[in-house]
Amino acid sequence: MRRLLLLFFCLPIMAQAQVNQDSVMIKKMADEIMTNGKAYDLLRELTKKIGGRLAGSPQQQNAAIWGKRNMEAFQPDKVFMQPCKTPNWQRGGKDFAAVVGINGRATTQKLEVLALGNSLGSNGLVEADILAVANFEELEKRKDEVKGKIVYFNSEFDPTLVQTFRAYGAAGMYRRSGPSRAAKYGAVGVMIHSLSSAPDNAPHTGAMVYDEAQPKIPAVALGPTDAKALYALAKKITVRAQMQTYGFYLPDADENNVVAELKGTEHPEEIITIGGHLDSWDVNEGAHDDGAGVVHTMEVLRTMKALNYQPKHTIRFVLFANEENGGKGGAKYTELAKLNKEKHILALESDEGGFTPRAIAVSCTPEQLAYFQTWTPLLKPYGTEVTTGGGGADIGPLTGYDKSIIISSMIPDSQRYFDVHHAKTDVFENVNKRELLLGAVNIAAFIYLVDQHGVN
Amino acid sequence: MRRLLLLFFCLPIMAQAQVNQDSVMIKKMADEIMTNGKAYDLLRELTKKIGGRLAGSPQQQNAAIWGKRNMEAFQPDKVFMQPCKTPNWQRGGKDFAAVVGINGRATTQKLEVLALGNSLGSNGLVEADILAVANFEELEKRKDEVKGKIVYFNSEFDPTLVQTFRAYGAAGMYRRSGPSRAAKYGAVGVMIHSLSSAPDNAPHTGAMVYDEAQPKIPAVALGPTDAKALYALAKKITVRAQMQTYGFYLPDADENNVVAELKGTEHPEEIITIGGHLDSWDVNEGAHDDGAGVVHTMEVLRTMKALNYQPKHTIRFVLFANEENGGKGGAKYTELAKLNKEKHILALESDEGGFTPRAIAVSCTPEQLAYFQTWTPLLKPYGTEVTTGGGGADIGPLTGYDKSIIISSMIPDSQRYFDVHHAKTDVFENVNKRELLLGAVNIAAFIYLVDQHGVN
Repeated sequence: MRRLLLLFFCLPIMAQAQVNQDSVMIKKMADEIMTNGKAYDLLRELTKKIGGRLAGSPQQQNAAIWGKRNMEAFQPDKVFMQPCKTPNWQRGGKDFAAVVGINGRATTQKLEVLALGNSLGSNGLVEADILAVANFEELEKRKDEVKGKIVYFNSEFDPTLVQTFRAYGAAGMYRRSGPSRAAKYGAVGVMIHSLSSAPDNAPHTGAMVYDEAQPKIPAVALGPTDAKALYALAKKITVRAQMQTYGFYLPDADENNVVAELKGTEHPEEIITIGGHLDSWDVNEGAHDDGAGVVHTMEVLRTMKALNYQPKHTIRFVLFANEENGGKGGAKYTELAKLNKEKHILALESDEGGFTPRAIAVSCTPEQLAYFQTWTPLLKPYGTEVTTGGGGADIGPLTGYDKSIIISSMIPDSQRYFDVHHAKTDVFENVNKRELLLGAVNIAAFIYLVDQHGVN
Repeated sequence: MRRLLLLFFCLPIMAQAQVNQDSVMIKKMADEIMTNGKAYDLLRELTKKIGGRLAGSPQQQNAAIWGKRNMEAFQPDKVFMQPCKTPNWQRGGKDFAAVVGINGRATTQKLEVLALGNSLGSNGLVEADILAVANFEELEKRKDEVKGKIVYFNSEFDPTLVQTFRAYGAAGMYRRSGPSRAAKYGAVGVMIHSLSSAPDNAPHTGAMVYDEAQPKIPAVALGPTDAKALYALAKKITVRAQMQTYGFYLPDADENNVVAELKGTEHPEEIITIGGHLDSWDVNEGAHDDGAGVVHTMEVLRTMKALNYQPKHTIRFVLFANEENGGKGGAKYTELAKLNKEKHILALESDEGGFTPRAIAVSCTPEQLAYFQTWTPLLKPYGTEVTTGGGGADIGPLTGYDKSIIISSMIPDSQRYFDVHHAKTDVFENVNKRELLLGAVNIAAFIYLVDQHGVN
């Protein structure tokens, strides 16, 4: 009875002591990052000295070398490369589009455009009347009108969706499959409204995928202002347009995932992975997408070493080679994890920008979620809570070989992400230092808690 | 018994029905604001067509006329002015400072500076050695060294404070009372580290207050980069500096609070007030401080009228005339409320910028807070929760005449606010449309709930 009573009273006390110890360690990491953090300076280097990093470009190869050199300087137990083949898409020239006729009257109004990533060149100037449709439903209804036309899809964001990733999810299918859906009915080109939330006219590129059964027609995204004006016009009257693009593929390129590792002291065979992707589109500096995730990853490593933290589990810090147009970096990481029979317990990706962190999202069972959510009071002082639904394109494949792996992600505030995502405006100047560093704080805190207490 | 049972079962159902009705109405308001919101366009007008609006300036008078005209266009029950006298401080010229000697060796290194608001001109060039101190404690310890010197206070933000308003609170006393604290011991001028979180060199002005018992010495804020460099140097070796400022006062100006009103249908005598302040400093467009609060206020009025919402209580939408250097707008509003024996039940201020909203903070009893927090589930989909501690410089005086008035505020994410606050960088381009509109959504939702359910 006395022992039972003792146990009864001691358990909460022990738990409280653990919470206090966690709270102290998280505060130490936070202070280290907010005071001495290198993420912002590293991001300046990556964006300003290296620049845009499309897979296959010399910049992307330099970025991997830069990542390896910088992570080595933090002196983890090891740093290694994982060579992988990536697509090598080339924009090939300056994309062009213009309105050249309005109701039969000639005009010349240049449009702000970018060819969609993976799309092929137009082989010269394509000129045709516009068929403007709101969505795939209208395309299907009007399929008999498509032949010989340039189809415009009004893939504008729904502004009432508070989480902009939901608006992106809904509009994204027009970028990905719009070209082949229109080609099926004889379209000669496709234009879409940029997948953007910005009140500006910067066009946003991004990956599309051709249906191999259809003609591979050229496809561009229009700047938001031009897109809205074109749609308003083309819904009512005949608009004739020109477009010219130059996309083509070189043979696959040799790139590398860069992996740093801290060896676990208690469970070295159990791996926790965090990462972001090194590659970006060609038209910007890839500052938020995904320079932020890259430097978040490096900052957490730096901080753990600076505080001489010795993890119980092995922690991997991964800069993935290729996410944007092929996902070959994540695929290679998973392929090797499977080959080497590695046991991953949790992976976290940061690929939603360097904005103020709002949540750590975790894809797991309801019981596991309830367990992780007991950590929310420890994260809340730094701005986040644990929510459901995390993942990422680079770590997602891991669940394909081992369903028990928990995938998670840093969820920053989403309001500004699609203002700059895949547009020329995704540059270092649009990243805020404190917001970026706070992201690293919350990732470090969550990974520390996973390392200390496991995934239940 | 049957009636009791009926009551027992019906109460939760009725409560649920009310929650659903509230949820539907809040969604309607949110959709209206995110789709048709005018806050961003109004802010563009206020910042780009009118510009900086220091009390006493023609811009500030134009801003009041603009506010009245625009609120009248939304057709509330009435719009009226509350004339008030405000200070009329003039910067008077281009503030200057430079390092002119290092350890006795002549040099010329211009510093980025702004005179502090309310500070008086230097009457020509002041040249003296720098005494650099970390804080008031060090000033007191070294008071015998102060005479004839220019005192530099290292009022740098503590970067480890996650909420930047806490860092501002701690550093702010050097701007407000540093000059007179140093003058007391014979200083001839004061320089401070700008109250800034930005990794740039833009100086930040803001109000200081002279102690009438001390000489009124000139006072400037240095750009952060210059401030850090100067402090590093002056801690170790003798640094000689020059400064020249031109501040003076014109006779008090005639300004106006602008008040729009929706008359209550059930409790017309009970008033709910929301507001922001029209005035700004002279060196910027006052976009976040407090153009955002002004257009938040106007947007909530616009939305309630657009949805034909007829409030139970009287709702006031107030554009305060003068907050930055005197607080005369809020003082006048309270003076008239007292004079007219008005019964205010709650006031909300938006004066922390147009960033993504994180909370509605309320200063009230713990029981009232618990009551307001039952609304958090209704606000959470739009990004906020109800927390404790709200208020604002314009509405604070209300509690002086009636302690039962609950004061509250919109709490946006604070990471970027002090990058731009009182600096030349507080311009329209640094306001994000969606973030701004979401602020209006959450204010509208909270005020709607107060109006429907009272303050308990």
